[in-house]
Amino acid sequence: MRIAGIDPGLNATGYGIVDVDGDECRHVAHGVVRTRSADSLARRLVLIRDGLRKAFAQWSPEVGAVEASFVGSNARSALALGHARAAAILALADSGLEVHEYAPAVIKNQVGGYGQSDKAQIAKMVGIELGIEPPGPSDAADALAVAITHWAHSRLEGRL
Amino acid sequence: MRIAGIDPGLNATGYGIVDVDGDECRHVAHGVVRTRSADSLARRLVLIRDGLRKAFAQWSPEVGAVEASFVGSNARSALALGHARAAAILALADSGLEVHEYAPAVIKNQVGGYGQSDKAQIAKMVGIELGIEPPGPSDAADALAVAITHWAHSRLEGRL
Repeated sequence: MRIAGIDPGLNATGYGIVDVDGDECRHVAHGVVRTRSADSLARRLVLIRDGLRKAFAQWSPEVGAVEASFVGSNARSALALGHARAAAILALADSGLEVHEYAPAVIKNQVGGYGQSDKAQIAKMVGIELGIEPPGPSDAADALAVAITHWAHSRLEGRL
Repeated sequence: MRIAGIDPGLNATGYGIVDVDGDECRHVAHGVVRTRSADSLARRLVLIRDGLRKAFAQWSPEVGAVEASFVGSNARSALALGHARAAAILALADSGLEVHEYAPAVIKNQVGGYGQSDKAQIAKMVGIELGIEPPGPSDAADALAVAITHWAHSRLEGRL
């Protein structure tokens, strides 16, 4: 089963692709779709969606996992994140992929081990889990962490 | 010039189409795209986007206007609104329409006259402005108000 993990953001949306087979989880690819704040919101959302659709067409994942939003106290940030998440979710839907969501604390707990991991620690643990150098940039590492989390949860639920 | 106004919401997204020619603004159509909270977020975003794309294909607007978000203190509401807005903006972009944004206070000031108008008042004023019965449901009336606001601002800026 090939999983696409997504870490959505208006400036940078990370994606990570892994292949899983029972207890094995193998790195396939990762990348980041970037947009410029000088561009219109419409342009940025199109870039995020189309960039992800292109990656999915290239790597042919079979299921998608997205970081569920941490809703803090900042409504303006939540609005911007909602825009980016919708573009990512529509890219997954347009590519025929089922969308699973995982809360940030669940992902950090899965990959970092303690639920308080910082970004460098996430990248390091993702590297160890997949047997590769710690992936950069951090948005791509976070996306791989989402994909790993979906693998772990699917395995627990006996879905694979 | 034919304008599409959009009032985005995850449960109900209103759209309103008007034709403008100098000082004339004529009602063409309005409607609401509804989604069910029982459906997945991905499904709801696809329904909003595809419902709007269908309306644009039917009515062939030449430019789009969207209510800019009122960012209150509720981050969870802002996130949900961000999702719906992105689906609406992508529908406009996919239909080749330029996207203009107007703040809720600007729209209320334009259509209601005092900046504190409630929804019934907005529908009444939209009806008077367009020479039709007050349009219901309110999401569609709000969308027509966005379209009327774009017409008024474009006229002011001498764009038409």
